[in-house]
Amino acid sequence: MKICIVGCGAIGSLYAAHLARLDDVEVWAYDLNQAHVDAINANGLRLTGLSDFVAPVNARSDVKDIPACEFGIVAAKTLHTRAAIEATAGIFTDAAVCSVQNGVGNEEIIAEFVPRVILGTIFPAGHIVEPGVCNHDAGGKTWIGPFPDKPATMDEVEALADAINRGGMECLAMADARGAQWTKLIFNSASNAMGALTRLPHGVACDQPGVRKVMSDMVREGVAVAEALGITLDSDPDELIDYGREKAYHHPPSMLQDVRAQRLTEVDALNGGIARLGKEHGVPTPLNEAMTAIIKGLEASWSYKKPEEH
Amino acid sequence: MKICIVGCGAIGSLYAAHLARLDDVEVWAYDLNQAHVDAINANGLRLTGLSDFVAPVNARSDVKDIPACEFGIVAAKTLHTRAAIEATAGIFTDAAVCSVQNGVGNEEIIAEFVPRVILGTIFPAGHIVEPGVCNHDAGGKTWIGPFPDKPATMDEVEALADAINRGGMECLAMADARGAQWTKLIFNSASNAMGALTRLPHGVACDQPGVRKVMSDMVREGVAVAEALGITLDSDPDELIDYGREKAYHHPPSMLQDVRAQRLTEVDALNGGIARLGKEHGVPTPLNEAMTAIIKGLEASWSYKKPEEH
Repeated sequence: MKICIVGCGAIGSLYAAHLARLDDVEVWAYDLNQAHVDAINANGLRLTGLSDFVAPVNARSDVKDIPACEFGIVAAKTLHTRAAIEATAGIFTDAAVCSVQNGVGNEEIIAEFVPRVILGTIFPAGHIVEPGVCNHDAGGKTWIGPFPDKPATMDEVEALADAINRGGMECLAMADARGAQWTKLIFNSASNAMGALTRLPHGVACDQPGVRKVMSDMVREGVAVAEALGITLDSDPDELIDYGREKAYHHPPSMLQDVRAQRLTEVDALNGGIARLGKEHGVPTPLNEAMTAIIKGLEASWSYKKPEEH
Repeated sequence: MKICIVGCGAIGSLYAAHLARLDDVEVWAYDLNQAHVDAINANGLRLTGLSDFVAPVNARSDVKDIPACEFGIVAAKTLHTRAAIEATAGIFTDAAVCSVQNGVGNEEIIAEFVPRVILGTIFPAGHIVEPGVCNHDAGGKTWIGPFPDKPATMDEVEALADAINRGGMECLAMADARGAQWTKLIFNSASNAMGALTRLPHGVACDQPGVRKVMSDMVREGVAVAEALGITLDSDPDELIDYGREKAYHHPPSMLQDVRAQRLTEVDALNGGIARLGKEHGVPTPLNEAMTAIIKGLEASWSYKKPEEH
């Protein structure tokens, strides 16, 4: 079985390395970071932290050097989804391609380019330590299921889940994985927006009663949109916020990390996704809409230059 | 006539200097910035920019050195209102004291300490250039009227307005100045919160359609609270936002200036005031409430220290 990881940053590297431990899986990786690609090809892909092993991955920055694959795993940042799948579509002409990205809207884009799509939601986390080396920061499950608009077969979903499990990460194949996706989406949107705007780590933000209340109000909007979509949530996103406070008190949410580094955020796939689907289904989402606008304004401020004084 | 300016920063200095040009007015100023106090006493208080003159002001950092006055003008930052009026109450035992501060809630605090209160709203702006020197950045009217809960007489209001006018600033004495106060409050709350959170100057923030929409939504909340309070606005705060875009495109709202300098903001008197009065009168203000919480969270982030790693 050939699998290509599209976007081999921290998350892509976790899946690439675990899958590459299997004798019956050949792992390819498409990534534009040439130093990372070269280090992987020279020394293998190394995981540290929760995992500690090296695995053989065929990394390429030119898609022409990658063979046709039966599976794809898209792990690019959401703002690069279209560019990444447009570039790699040629290797997935008869493939099932799974998104393990944040938020909503990625599967819709992937479905424009490949025949069958798998919707995925994940909890593992990591960060690139140096080219060729990824630290496995946090464990957690991966939930995958057919993307309803352009579904992979259940056999494909189960084959991919089986490979991920055998590689050493916990993966559940589900007929409908949207409940898991929306539970994480709603949790993520509230905690990331508050982290990005207050600049507080998750637990510290939770301890500001006013900020914690805004998170709950944002969760309520997201839950209403999920209901309108007919999606049954896996668990209460508001409880996940408190759980996160216990488990990751000093953790800066990824959107806060982006803001600190003045990198474009994933707000369009998070709060923006809730607001867009809310609008499509007649559910008001004033807070998620406002946070999307404010965070995009903040992104714009990084390129604002005051004109010279006269 | 003796007048004491309480808090002789940029705004206080504008009123102090203009009033000190009058032969029949003796101007005192209470301020804790000793360098500014010493420079004023040594060389007079100098205005530059729109105004260009020096006037004699008796500046003191110890309230015991200030005589009883017939009028007070409180120009401290809103977070220092209580401390400032508590310290100076002894010189206002038979005085009418006017707030020219931002937002709402200041008159209530002043009324705890002095017999008669004047509510004020102002458009002039300035900044301290160096000790003893204030640049007059922007002109504009001052509106004053009796504070309904503990009113000064209309004679007092008119006497103060007359002095300010004769000193060279335009001041209107009104039986009810709350319409002017709330028009500016609502405009200020929307434009300042969006500036502080997006880090964009006012005009640039207005050109982000999503951000501009949030401003209008915030204005709508404020207008509803004003209506519930029985206050007739002077003009449409939403039009003031567009007017500000034309007149001050690259101007960073004061709350953005505070955020850049990591100084505590006046959010409690602005968005927080709208939210508090909305709650008291059963008018929902979810956006003003959320912005208050987020900006207070942001203030908290300036003192957050990540614990040492183990």
